[in-house]
Amino acid sequence: MTRDQLTEKILDIKREKGLTWKQITEAIGGMSPMLVVGALLGQMKLVKPLAAKAKDLFGLTEAEAAMLNEVPYRGMPMPPTDPLIYRFYELVMVNGPALKALIEEEFGDGIMSAIDFNMEIEREPNAKGDRVKLSMSGKFLPYKYYGAEQGIPEYGFKEE
Amino acid sequence: MTRDQLTEKILDIKREKGLTWKQITEAIGGMSPMLVVGALLGQMKLVKPLAAKAKDLFGLTEAEAAMLNEVPYRGMPMPPTDPLIYRFYELVMVNGPALKALIEEEFGDGIMSAIDFNMEIEREPNAKGDRVKLSMSGKFLPYKYYGAEQGIPEYGFKEE
Amino acid sequence: MTRDQLTEKILDIKREKGLTWKQITEAIGGMSPMLVVGALLGQMKLVKPLAAKAKDLFGLTEAEAAMLNEVPYRGMPMPPTDPLIYRFYELVMVNGPALKALIEEEFGDGIMSAIDFNMEIEREPNAKGDRVKLSMSGKFLPYKYYGAEQGIPEYGFKEE
Amino acid sequence: MTRDQLTEKILDIKREKGLTWKQITEAIGGMSPMLVVGALLGQMKLVKPLAAKAKDLFGLTEAEAAMLNEVPYRGMPMPPTDPLIYRFYELVMVNGPALKALIEEEFGDGIMSAIDFNMEIEREPNAKGDRVKLSMSGKFLPYKYYGAEQGIPEYGFKEE
Amino acid sequence: MTRDQLTEKILDIKREKGLTWKQITEAIGGMSPMLVVGALLGQMKLVKPLAAKAKDLFGLTEAEAAMLNEVPYRGMPMPPTDPLIYRFYELVMVNGPALKALIEEEFGDGIMSAIDFNMEIEREPNAKGDRVKLSMSGKFLPYKYYGAEQGIPEYGFKEE
Amino acid sequence: MTRDQLTEKILDIKREKGLTWKQITEAIGGMSPMLVVGALLGQMKLVKPLAAKAKDLFGLTEAEAAMLNEVPYRGMPMPPTDPLIYRFYELVMVNGPALKALIEEEFGDGIMSAIDFNMEIEREPNAKGDRVKLSMSGKFLPYKYYGAEQGIPEYGFKEE
Amino acid sequence: MTRDQLTEKILDIKREKGLTWKQITEAIGGMSPMLVVGALLGQMKLVKPLAAKAKDLFGLTEAEAAMLNEVPYRGMPMPPTDPLIYRFYELVMVNGPALKALIEEEFGDGIMSAIDFNMEIEREPNAKGDRVKLSMSGKFLPYKYYGAEQGIPEYGFKEE
Amino acid sequence: MTRDQLTEKILDIKREKGLTWKQITEAIGGMSPMLVVGALLGQMKLVKPLAAKAKDLFGLTEAEAAMLNEVPYRGMPMPPTDPLIYRFYELVMVNGPALKALIEEEFGDGIMSAIDFNMEIEREPNAKGDRVKLSMSGKFLPYKYYGAEQGIPEYGFKEE
Amino acid sequence: MTRDQLTEKILDIKREKGLTWKQITEAIGGMSPMLVVGALLGQMKLVKPLAAKAKDLFGLTEAEAAMLNEVPYRGMPMPPTDPLIYRFYELVMVNGPALKALIEEEFGDGIMSAIDFNMEIEREPNAKGDRVKLSMSGKFLPYKYYGAEQGIPEYGFKEE
Amino acid sequence: MTRDQLTEKILDIKREKGLTWKQITEAIGGMSPMLVVGALLGQMKLVKPLAAKAKDLFGLTEAEAAMLNEVPYRGMPMPPTDPLIYRFYELVMVNGPALKALIEEEFGDGIMSAIDFNMEIEREPNAKGDRVKLSMSGKFLPYKYYGAEQGIPEYGFKEE
Repeated sequence: MTRDQLTEKILDIKREKGLTWKQITEAIGGMSPMLVVGALLGQMKLVKPLAAKAKDLFGLTEAEAAMLNEVPYRGMPMPPTDPLIYRFYELVMVNGPALKALIEEEFGDGIMSAIDFNMEIEREPNAKGDRVKLSMSGKFLPYKYYGAEQGIPEYGFKEE
Repeated sequence: MTRDQLTEKILDIKREKGLTWKQITEAIGGMSPMLVVGALLGQMKLVKPLAAKAKDLFGLTEAEAAMLNEVPYRGMPMPPTDPLIYRFYELVMVNGPALKALIEEEFGDGIMSAIDFNMEIEREPNAKGDRVKLSMSGKFLPYKYYGAEQGIPEYGFKEE
Repeated sequence: MTRDQLTEKILDIKREKGLTWKQITEAIGGMSPMLVVGALLGQMKLVKPLAAKAKDLFGLTEAEAAMLNEVPYRGMPMPPTDPLIYRFYELVMVNGPALKALIEEEFGDGIMSAIDFNMEIEREPNAKGDRVKLSMSGKFLPYKYYGAEQGIPEYGFKEE
Repeated sequence: MTRDQLTEKILDIKREKGLTWKQITEAIGGMSPMLVVGALLGQMKLVKPLAAKAKDLFGLTEAEAAMLNEVPYRGMPMPPTDPLIYRFYELVMVNGPALKALIEEEFGDGIMSAIDFNMEIEREPNAKGDRVKLSMSGKFLPYKYYGAEQGIPEYGFKEE
Repeated sequence: MTRDQLTEKILDIKREKGLTWKQITEAIGGMSPMLVVGALLGQMKLVKPLAAKAKDLFGLTEAEAAMLNEVPYRGMPMPPTDPLIYRFYELVMVNGPALKALIEEEFGDGIMSAIDFNMEIEREPNAKGDRVKLSMSGKFLPYKYYGAEQGIPEYGFKEE
Repeated sequence: MTRDQLTEKILDIKREKGLTWKQITEAIGGMSPMLVVGALLGQMKLVKPLAAKAKDLFGLTEAEAAMLNEVPYRGMPMPPTDPLIYRFYELVMVNGPALKALIEEEFGDGIMSAIDFNMEIEREPNAKGDRVKLSMSGKFLPYKYYGAEQGIPEYGFKEE
Repeated sequence: MTRDQLTEKILDIKREKGLTWKQITEAIGGMSPMLVVGALLGQMKLVKPLAAKAKDLFGLTEAEAAMLNEVPYRGMPMPPTDPLIYRFYELVMVNGPALKALIEEEFGDGIMSAIDFNMEIEREPNAKGDRVKLSMSGKFLPYKYYGAEQGIPEYGFKEE
Repeated sequence: MTRDQLTEKILDIKREKGLTWKQITEAIGGMSPMLVVGALLGQMKLVKPLAAKAKDLFGLTEAEAAMLNEVPYRGMPMPPTDPLIYRFYELVMVNGPALKALIEEEFGDGIMSAIDFNMEIEREPNAKGDRVKLSMSGKFLPYKYYGAEQGIPEYGFKEE
Repeated sequence: MTRDQLTEKILDIKREKGLTWKQITEAIGGMSPMLVVGALLGQMKLVKPLAAKAKDLFGLTEAEAAMLNEVPYRGMPMPPTDPLIYRFYELVMVNGPALKALIEEEFGDGIMSAIDFNMEIEREPNAKGDRVKLSMSGKFLPYKYYGAEQGIPEYGFKEE
Repeated sequence: MTRDQLTEKILDIKREKGLTWKQITEAIGGMSPMLVVGALLGQMKLVKPLAAKAKDLFGLTEAEAAMLNEVPYRGMPMPPTDPLIYRFYELVMVNGPALKALIEEEFGDGIMSAIDFNMEIEREPNAKGDRVKLSMSGKFLPYKYYGAEQGIPEYGFKEE
C-alpha cells in the first residue's frame, strides 16, 4: 500500500458517504482543519489519537491508520498546473524578491520557518465579493554564524 | 536599458547612499512598502507620482522614471534557490492540496485572486523567538460557467 | 477511483455507444459544450443537475456522478505534444509580448481573467477553406495597489 | 547587432519620446497593431514600406530597418512567468483537451492554423467591469493522408 | 482502454501471428504505409474502411476499431533516447538555422506545413552501403498579415 | 571571439551589404548552399578554400576565416520556439515511431546516418500552393554485434 | 506485453534460478556478453538463434522470444541517478570538450560511430586495487559535404 | 554591480596577490572559515567588522564592502556538474530516504535545520589515504501542529 | 517483481507488525543502521547473511531475499520535495562553492569519495533544543594525471 | 576574469598563431594530451610547471597562468547538442544497464572511479575505415559497509 493509494481510498469513501471536509475535520478534530485535511491528502502526519478517529470515521484497517500516523514523503509536483494552487505559486514568484528584502531588513539574516509555522484560512465578507483571508506566522530563524568569535554575533539577527 | 539594469543601478545607489528600504519606502510612500520595494526590484509598476519621487530620491533620469512607471515582465526564476524564498515555495508545495480542498468547499469552484490581493508583513513578538506574520487577502473569483442556461448557476459559487 | 480513470471510462462508453460530443452536450446541456466536454475530460466541474444527467447518459454510479461534481485538479502536461493543442501554445509563445503591451496600454496594470472568462468556438465558412473561429472574453482585473494612500489609485487601471 | 538589442533600442526611444503603442501603430500603420507591435518586440517581420516608416519614426539606421524586415527567430521563453501572459498559457493548459475534442468532431482530423490566422483584441464595456475581447480565426488545415488510394479521402476532413 | 493499451495489444498480436509491417500495410492498404503504421502505433487516425480492415486482420473488438478511427493525442516523449529516432532530432537541431534561412529567402515569411505534408521512405541501393532515402514535401504556408491595408501584402510571401 | 560573435558579425555585414543567401552561396560555392549557410550560421565547417572565399566576401580577418574552418560546437537550443523549425521537430515527434518500425523492418537493426547524409531543398510548384520539397538520404549504419561468433551476423542487417 | 515487463520477468527467473550473467551469457553465447546482457535488459536485439537459446534457458514463450528478436526502444532515463552509471556520464561531461578537440584534429570533421562500435570490459589486476578496463573502438564517420564541387573534399576528413 | 561581479573581482585579487583561503580567513577571522569563504563566493553575509577587514585585505570600495554585508541571493545552479560538489549531491540522493526514516523515528515529525546549523571540515589522517571529515549539526525543528487542542501535542516531537 | 514493490511490501509488514527501524536494524545488525535501512528502502545491498536475517524477520521469499542481496539502481528523484530531505539538498546548494574551495586548498585536486564513505547520525542533546549530529568521512581521491612524465605528480595532491 | 574568458583567449591565440593541439601538447608536455587540452578548455588543472609552459607558449599574464593552476568548476552543459560528444552520451544511455550488471557481477558492489582514471585515444587503422580507439581504466572502488561487524565484509567486493 502506498500513501497515494490510501489517499485515493479515503477520497472514495468521502465521496460515497457524502462527507464534507468540515464534517471530517470536526469528527477528527484535535488540530487545525488545514493539517487534518493535509494528512488525509498525504502531506501531513496524524498523531495516534487522531489517526484512531480517522480509522473509525472511514472504516480503515489498523495498517491504514498506522500509515496515517507516519510522516509522509511531503510535496506535490511543481509547478502546479491547477489554477487555484498556481496563484499561490505566482505570489511567491512575483513577491519573492520584496519578501526577501523586507524580512531581512526587519529581522536580519535568516528565514521564516516553514516548519514552526501556523496558517489560518477564513472567509472575509466583502461587498465587492468575499475574500479569502490567509493568516500565516512562522518563527524567524536567524542564520547561525558558527565558529563566531568574541564580538561577532552568533546568529544573523539584525545588525545595529 | 533593461529593467534588470535599472534594478542594479537602484541597488547600487541604495548601497552607496546607505539607504534602508524603510527610508526609501517612507520617502516614496503612496502605497504598501511591499509594492514599492517590488517595483524597485523590477516586479511592480510605480504610478507616476511615485515614480517621480523615486526619480528624486535616486537621482534617476526621465527615461528611468518612465521605466519604473511601466509594467515590468513579472516573475523570478523558479524554483527559488535562496532559502528564504524557498520556504514560501515549500509552503505552496506542501499545503497546496489542502488549500484547494478547503477553499473550494468554502467558496465553490474558483480561485483566490493573485491580482486583487493584499499582503501585509509584520513582526510578531514572541517569547520563544519573534515571528514573521503575513496577512494575505485575495478576492475569491468563481469560475464562469459560460453559456449557463436557466436554472444553472452562471458562476461556480458554492452549490447548495 | 481517480479522475483519469473516470475519464477513461466515459470515453469507453462514448465509443461503445457511438455517441458524439454533440449528442452528449445536447443531452446534458446546461452550459457551453466547451465546459461540459471539459468536465467529462477531467478539467471542469459539472454542477449537480448536469452531473445527474451525465450519470443517466453514461450509466455511471452515484460515486462517479459525485466525482463529476467535484472540482478536478486542472491542467494537462505542458508543452503539449499534440499538434492541434500545440498551435494554441505557439500563439501564446509568439503573441505573448504584443498581447501584454496592448492590453496594458488599453486597460492599465492588470490581467485578463482566465476564470471569469467565456470562450466560443464556431465554424467560419470561407471559400479558401473554412476557418476555426474562437471568441474569448475575460474580465480585466486590475492589480490592487494595497495600502494606497490618498491621491494614489487603489487599482492599476489606465493612468491618465 | 541582435534582434534583442534592436528591441531594447526601440523601447528606449519609445520611452524617451513618450510614445504610446497607439501612436506608433498609427504612424506605421499598414496592418494590425498586434502585428506591428509584435514586430517591434522581435516576434514578427515588417514588410519594407512599414520598416521604412519605423525607421523614420524611431530614427533607426538602414541596417536596423533591414533587420525589422527580416523574419525573427520567433518565440519567448516558456512557461511565461508574467501573470498577464500566463493566463493565456493556462487557458491552453485547461481547455486544450476540450478544444481538441470539439474541433476534431466539427472539422475532422487536422488543426487550426497558427500561421493563416487573425487575432483582434478589443475592449468590451461591461457594467461589472470591462472585458478583454479576443477574436481569433485560423484556417482549418486537414491532415493529408498521403498515398491515399481510391475511395479513401486524401485529407482528414470530417468523415461521414 | 487507452490508446497505449491498444497499441500494446496490436503489437502482441503482430508478434504472435508473426506478421510484418509489410504484410499489415498491404492487408490494410488505403494510404501510405507510413500513416498506417503510425496509426497502429498510436500517432495517426485510420478512416473507417481502414479501421475495419485492421479489425479483421487483428481480430479487434468494435470499440477497438472505433478507437483506431479516433484522432489520437499525438507526439512521443522528447528528446528521443532511441538512436534511430535521435538522428532525425539531431538533423533538426543542426540544420534548423539553415533551413529557416533558406526557406524564408525562397518563399517568404511562413512555414512548411507539417499537416499538409507527404513523406516517402525508400531504400536507395549504393555500392558503399545502401541508403535510407526520405522524400518530404509540405505546403508552404505564408504568415497572414491580418488587417493588411492597401499596398501591403496580405500574406508573407517573398517580397520583391 | 566566440563563434556566436562571428555569426552576428557576418549577419551584420550581410544586412549592410544587402546580400542574399543566394548571392553568398554562389560567391562561396564549393558545396551545397545548405552547408555553406549552416557554416555561416555556426553549425558547419568551411574547408579552407571556401573559408578564404568567405573572408573575401565579408572582409573578415585571418582569424575569423580560421574560425570558419574550425568545426563548431554544433546544435541549437531545443525545443525550437520558432514555428518554422518547430514543424520539423513535430514531424520527428509524430512520425518517429513509424520511421523506426519501417526502417528497421526494411534494413535491419541500425540507424540512418546523420553524418553521411545529404539534404536537398527545392521549391515544388503546385497549383494549390507551392510546396517545400526536402530530399534526404543517409547511409544505413547497421549495429555492430561485436564478439560475433561463427554463424552469427557481425552487423545488424535484416535477418532472413 | 511491454519490453520492460519481459526484462522484469527475465530478472525474476535469473534470481529464482540463481543464475549469474556469466552463466547466462555462456549459455546463450553468440556475441559479446555486453550485448547479450544489454538485450536481456531491454537495450539490444538478439538475433534468432540467440533468442531461441534465451527462450530455452529462461523458459520463455514463443512471443517472448520474438520480442527479444525485436529492436527495442533503446535508452535509459538521463541523467543517471545510480553512482556506477553516473561516473560514465561524468566522464563525458568533463572530457567531452577535449575528446572533440583531439578527435577532430586527428581525423577531421566527423564523429566516432556509436553504432559501428565495439566495447570490451576486463578486470585489470593492480596492486593498489584492481581496475575496470574498458576498450572501445568506433568507426570514424566523416561529415559528408554534399554537393561538393571539384576540388572540394566530399567528406570531412583531415584537411592538409 | 552584481554579487557575481564582486566575487569575480575578489578571486582576481586573490590570484594576483597569491593569497590562500587560509591566509584570507585568518586575516578576516571572526567566524568559521567555511562561512567567510562562502561570503566571498557570494553565498553568505559578512557582518560589518568582517566586511571591513575584507575591504582592507582586498582593497575594496565602500560600496563593495557594503555589498559583502548584504545577504546574497543564495544557491548555486543544480544539479552540480563539478565532480567534487556532485558527490555531496549524490550522498543526498542515495541516503535521503534512510536519513528521513531515521531522523523521524528518533526525533519525531520535523526536520534538521539548515539555518541553525554548524559544519566543520577537517583532514582525517589515515594510512590508506587521508579522509575528508565533515561534522554537521543542525537543530531539530519539529513540525508545528497549529490549532492543537488539549491532549494533542503542539509540536511533532516523537510520540510515545 | 521490482525493487520498489519489495520496498512497499517490507514497509507494509513493518507497519502491520508495528516494528521500528531500531528493532529492525538490531535484528538484522551486521553494519550501520543507516545502511540497513537504506537497503530496505531500495538504495543499498544487504550481504547474504544480512539478507537472510531480513528474510526471517519479514517472512520474505527466497527470491525476495536474493533481491535484497542485489545492488539496486540507486538514487531518488531530485530535487527532493520533502522538506527533511530538501534541507540536505539546500546545504549542498549553498555550501557547495565553499566546500570545493576549502577541500581543494587542503587536499589538492580531487574529491571526497561518496563510496568509501561513512556516515553516523546521533542525537546531540542541547538545552535550546536537541540537535541532529551527522559525522561524515570520505576518503580523499586525488585526480589522476595520467601520462604524467618525470617531475610531474601522478596524482592531484596538494602542490607545494 | 572568468575561466571561460581565459579559454576564449587561449583559443584566439591558438587560431592566430595557427597552432595545433599536437604542437601545443608537445610544447607543454608533462602529462597526457587529453588532460592538457582539457585544462586549456577549462576542465582540468595544470600543475605549476605546466602552467608556466602554457604561459610562455600563449604569452599569458601571471594571473592567467595562476588561473590555469586552479581547479576549474568542471562539467559542460548536458545533454550535449554536438553530435561528436552526443555519441559518447548515447553510449552511456544505451549501455549503462549492461555495464552496471557486468561490473557488479565481476567486482562486487561499487563503481569504476572517474577520478583515479586513465584514458587514451588512438587512431586504429582499418581497411573499412579507420577507427577511434579509446582505452579507459578506472580503479574499482567498492562501497564501504561502515559499521561492519565481525563476519561482515567492510567493503562491497564480490561476495563468495
